[in-house]
Amino acid sequence: MTAIPIPHPTESKDSVRALYWQEGLLRVLDQRQLPGTLHYDDCATVGAVAEAIATMRVRGAPAIGIAAAYGVVLAAIARYAAAPATWKTAIETDLDTLARSRPTAVNLFWALERMRGLIQGLAGDPVPALLEAARAIHTDDVAANRRMGELGADLLAGATGVLTHCNTGSLATGGYGTALGVIRSAHRRGLGKVFASETRPWLQGSRLTVWELEQDGIPARLVADSAAAYLMKSGQVQWVIVGADRIAANGDTANKIGTYALAVTARHHGVKFMVAAPVSTIDWRTESGAGIEIEERDPRELLNPYFLREDSIISAWNPVFDVTPASLIDAIVTEHGVVLNPGPASMRALRDAIDGGAAWIPAR
Amino acid sequence: MTAIPIPHPTESKDSVRALYWQEGLLRVLDQRQLPGTLHYDDCATVGAVAEAIATMRVRGAPAIGIAAAYGVVLAAIARYAAAPATWKTAIETDLDTLARSRPTAVNLFWALERMRGLIQGLAGDPVPALLEAARAIHTDDVAANRRMGELGADLLAGATGVLTHCNTGSLATGGYGTALGVIRSAHRRGLGKVFASETRPWLQGSRLTVWELEQDGIPARLVADSAAAYLMKSGQVQWVIVGADRIAANGDTANKIGTYALAVTARHHGVKFMVAAPVSTIDWRTESGAGIEIEERDPRELLNPYFLREDSIISAWNPVFDVTPASLIDAIVTEHGVVLNPGPASMRALRDAIDGGAAWIPAR
Repeated sequence: MTAIPIPHPTESKDSVRALYWQEGLLRVLDQRQLPGTLHYDDCATVGAVAEAIATMRVRGAPAIGIAAAYGVVLAAIARYAAAPATWKTAIETDLDTLARSRPTAVNLFWALERMRGLIQGLAGDPVPALLEAARAIHTDDVAANRRMGELGADLLAGATGVLTHCNTGSLATGGYGTALGVIRSAHRRGLGKVFASETRPWLQGSRLTVWELEQDGIPARLVADSAAAYLMKSGQVQWVIVGADRIAANGDTANKIGTYALAVTARHHGVKFMVAAPVSTIDWRTESGAGIEIEERDPRELLNPYFLREDSIISAWNPVFDVTPASLIDAIVTEHGVVLNPGPASMRALRDAIDGGAAWIPAR
Repeated sequence: MTAIPIPHPTESKDSVRALYWQEGLLRVLDQRQLPGTLHYDDCATVGAVAEAIATMRVRGAPAIGIAAAYGVVLAAIARYAAAPATWKTAIETDLDTLARSRPTAVNLFWALERMRGLIQGLAGDPVPALLEAARAIHTDDVAANRRMGELGADLLAGATGVLTHCNTGSLATGGYGTALGVIRSAHRRGLGKVFASETRPWLQGSRLTVWELEQDGIPARLVADSAAAYLMKSGQVQWVIVGADRIAANGDTANKIGTYALAVTARHHGVKFMVAAPVSTIDWRTESGAGIEIEERDPRELLNPYFLREDSIISAWNPVFDVTPASLIDAIVTEHGVVLNPGPASMRALRDAIDGGAAWIPAR
């Protein structure tokens, strides 16, 4: 348990890491303590990694997947040392422990399946190969985000201000971020103003996003979620840039609650709306947003403790996500290319290009 | 300094009072402590009343005006007892003290002018006449709100759910409230669901509005400000009902930040938008919303303390109000009548009716 100072802003404007591997340990930034306290936990066991995920020290689907991959490495170190002949059987318990840490994170299962597939073919000390695979999952994610960042920044030509929602940055991914990666790339090209919404009720914007931007020397202004429409009316932003939790096959996008309100008000003001997300976020089996179930969280996140009495007639409606129809989205930016004016046909073209391994040339 | 239990919900669904006169004292509910603590301060001097206003124990323009009127009564009691021959000169200091307590509250100056005008013509003990005048300001406000409540509820026929923003209830007025008065009246007529927004950054919705509704047995559901658009999409509300801080001569309305976002998203969903406010809120000298200056408050209301360092590159944009254009408003409800589809002509008709003392028949 040590506190590590964040390095000076780098030229790539990407100095923050939610987690990193160091000398047989996974170091995990405890995001619950940000922005006031910068504290990394040293996770030396698979159990410690699972606990860091379950308690939301690490959050964001890509970051969770990467943490789980490194957790498999820690499990292999212990299991192989204890019983070189039977470690492949013993490690299944550890994979189960990791899988149970956040039951709904798709990237978690994807990372565990990739590691499990590799384990089958290994002989001798498995640690070097598993560590290489975990590192690859990590670096591939950063590379995908950097590609999205450049593609997204290409679309912003002439914009003097942008607004983002929630936290989609280095803290939520392997590094660089999705929507926040686009903002990093655009900042390097001279983008003027970055606005971030508070993002109630968890305040990812005011606790995480502006902190992460400050670490990289990118000035930002915070606004109340309810002030975003008035911000657009003031002419200070030309684009809203958000991430995605799930994208349906027609381009409808589920993302943090409040995203839909931003899309409606952006369209009213002629402000453009961009979704930045890796293709792993696209759920091709779900035809449209109507098929995406929206989780509702504990009303206590909104209610003053006074109203938590059994006899209270005050309740709260607390959906975690909302669905923005593709018709309100101007561009979906992925690491495989950009879909402008997304809809069933343009999304299918993206899918065909991915399946064919072809370079995807967006229709401009 | 005593704590007084709120009475049981009344038939009129209006049991809460921000302030009331009792045996030579003004009792002021300390709204800063709601909802957890119900505490009335006893104000026995004009200085105590001024302090209650300045420290925002009492808030809401109508409630501030009423408190100031009672403050003048307390001043007269002391000044007349001390020097019956020269109290009219001495009390000017007290009027100034009250006027300085909240420099921008229009109702405060209006109430003080009304009391000052009465003082000029008084002879002998001034207290009975001044107390009668203060009571009249108080009861006139409640009567106006009840009238607005009924007129507004008339418009809601068939609505099964409404959404309100900020606190416009008994806590902000002499009693009953403006937008919340409409909701009280509609609830008595069988309105199904009441939703209230949190109203960041001060949380008037989650601290005050739902508390006030609970006191009167009106069930309500709290939503994050950013969830309002998704709530409208879900079909659970047919009207948004808000108050006003200032209405321009063409119907453009300045109100709590977030009101404009609700108006834009309401129009997108075919949800109707109502402003409920007394005619004293209308600023006939301001032609349109473009002439209304928007106050920006301290960024510290939004920023995490971590970013309050001098060298921080993180700031906040924190406008208190926004302006909703009349074109997005379906009805402005006043105690003199309803203006449907407000604009310069329909607002002028309201003004003519008020000036002429005629009953105002809204164009349906």
